[in-house]
Amino acid sequence: MRTMTKLLSGLVGLVFIGSAMQTKAQTNPVYGLVIHAGAGAASRKNTTPEDERLRRAKLEEARDAGYAVLEKGGTATDAVIASINVMENAGLFDAGKGSVFNAEGVCELDASIMDGKTLAAGAVSAVQHIKNPITLARAVMDKSPHVMLTADGAEKFAKTQGFELVPNSYFQTERSRKQWEKIKAQEKKKDSAPHAQADVSEKLGTVGCVALDKDGNLAAGTSTGGLANKLPGRVGDSPIIGAGTYAKNSTCAVSGTGQGEYYIRQSFAHTISALMEYKGLTVQDAAAQAIKNIDSMGGQGGCIALDRNAQFAMPFNTPAMNRAFKFSDGRTSVDLFGEK
Amino acid sequence: MRTMTKLLSGLVGLVFIGSAMQTKAQTNPVYGLVIHAGAGAASRKNTTPEDERLRRAKLEEARDAGYAVLEKGGTATDAVIASINVMENAGLFDAGKGSVFNAEGVCELDASIMDGKTLAAGAVSAVQHIKNPITLARAVMDKSPHVMLTADGAEKFAKTQGFELVPNSYFQTERSRKQWEKIKAQEKKKDSAPHAQADVSEKLGTVGCVALDKDGNLAAGTSTGGLANKLPGRVGDSPIIGAGTYAKNSTCAVSGTGQGEYYIRQSFAHTISALMEYKGLTVQDAAAQAIKNIDSMGGQGGCIALDRNAQFAMPFNTPAMNRAFKFSDGRTSVDLFGEK
Repeated sequence: MRTMTKLLSGLVGLVFIGSAMQTKAQTNPVYGLVIHAGAGAASRKNTTPEDERLRRAKLEEARDAGYAVLEKGGTATDAVIASINVMENAGLFDAGKGSVFNAEGVCELDASIMDGKTLAAGAVSAVQHIKNPITLARAVMDKSPHVMLTADGAEKFAKTQGFELVPNSYFQTERSRKQWEKIKAQEKKKDSAPHAQADVSEKLGTVGCVALDKDGNLAAGTSTGGLANKLPGRVGDSPIIGAGTYAKNSTCAVSGTGQGEYYIRQSFAHTISALMEYKGLTVQDAAAQAIKNIDSMGGQGGCIALDRNAQFAMPFNTPAMNRAFKFSDGRTSVDLFGEK
Repeated sequence: MRTMTKLLSGLVGLVFIGSAMQTKAQTNPVYGLVIHAGAGAASRKNTTPEDERLRRAKLEEARDAGYAVLEKGGTATDAVIASINVMENAGLFDAGKGSVFNAEGVCELDASIMDGKTLAAGAVSAVQHIKNPITLARAVMDKSPHVMLTADGAEKFAKTQGFELVPNSYFQTERSRKQWEKIKAQEKKKDSAPHAQADVSEKLGTVGCVALDKDGNLAAGTSTGGLANKLPGRVGDSPIIGAGTYAKNSTCAVSGTGQGEYYIRQSFAHTISALMEYKGLTVQDAAAQAIKNIDSMGGQGGCIALDRNAQFAMPFNTPAMNRAFKFSDGRTSVDLFGEK
């Protein structure tokens, strides 16, 4: 009888905790954000001290730009835009300036953003002339009746919204050109398919941000140049709401980075939200499980995930992930490599 | 004590059923499929007898085409393609021939397919010259390293795969032109935004199929011309894996139809899978809950969802949904309107 009572109260306790987590309304005094600039194989060994310094400084700048927005009482959505804009403009990551080349030597960019309070979302895919794709994704969310616009149509919409179009050469850095030329040379040597992709030694430098504002609202955003040497028109997980990006106040905000095809097939970002909503998992356990799902298919990558209690996770199954965070309770960090 | 034992065994029983549903490996002797050709407001009142006859006959033809594949031992994926091809070629639905016009009077088509056994998936968005977008989505799945290709890039890939491109006029039926001219006239009258959409009295004629083959494998596919008068480049839920389409053997196969922006924001199709996987819901309860989520945001539409036990659901919150099914255990039906 005593055992049974114990067991029963244990079960009831679990159910109670689960419900409480799902329904708890709160005004959270802690605010802050987490950013990433891609999961990949760049270890301390194959990164020059100069590269490390530049990346670390840019991550700090991006993190602080978003944090400043939150500090002034700005929305999580505004903070996400501010952080990602810095990384898109950096020329160091696979997003905005610095994006990788597709199989035809052109940069094609994807981005999406989602507001956890309203589930409003915006996304653009395969744009070639938009300096800050995340800002256009936000315009799609705020100024169009749609969630996603692609290619020429997205750029037409951009013009109606006063966006200035840049030539594709704006995005093309020497670093990305060299990477692409190396892949093309390997293709010729191996007589492999024309869509041979960068191997895991190449960086996966997608950028993303998840933020929690003073009002307790979450937002998530992701911006990328996609996979090096991808087929023209290839759309990865980054602009797919539910795959590379998701935000819902009652669960979490997520931004993924990695081999997007696996992320799409797993509905990666929404899986983390669903594991919290339907199974009562913590954000850490849910994110770990979602990366495990990617891993079990042979996929590689990582993510950042943040809940309304300012709890977060930054799991990855690659050797490294560029990442940083800052919260109003003092927690702050910048990391480039695998040491956790 | 007796009450406690009862309560405890009830709880344990629920847990047991939940686990059994998630892990049960089976070779299911029942095979079959469910199709839809859109949820909308077309009631018996505003449908001519001739229209009703044509639609009903085409739904039967599409259903039987897919069923014949299954009967011969073909895969669920092949059955989905066979059924959807018939509907894409019909000139009666908002998919393939008969697709609605975008804001510039052009047909832009989206489609996706997913294999529940492997989680392989393929999708195309905003294509203008592909007679059968679902067949191109399958080629993306089978013949490219990617899941999704968009716009011109998707059509370039189609050419490398031997697809013949058709002029956009192939898709443009008199019915769709009249619908578009009516919307454009309303826009002028109301001085409304240039992206005024078809109101609920217009049909939402996306087509889809979910199938279960003799080997117990599931597949799902969706094909659409999207929303009438949509902005050029608008991508709806149909080509988004996790939103309009999802398939996973251990849970279900889903194809959605409705106001895609809500379906994307809710990760609609993956939600049904997640409710089954993480909460142990039946396919009927999971699908009903997902439609309730759409409804709670003010969205309209429906879906078809099928599990490995040949249990299925066809919920919708619109006045009508074109739908049909056929299973090897004798269950079969064709319905156009709201009577269930």
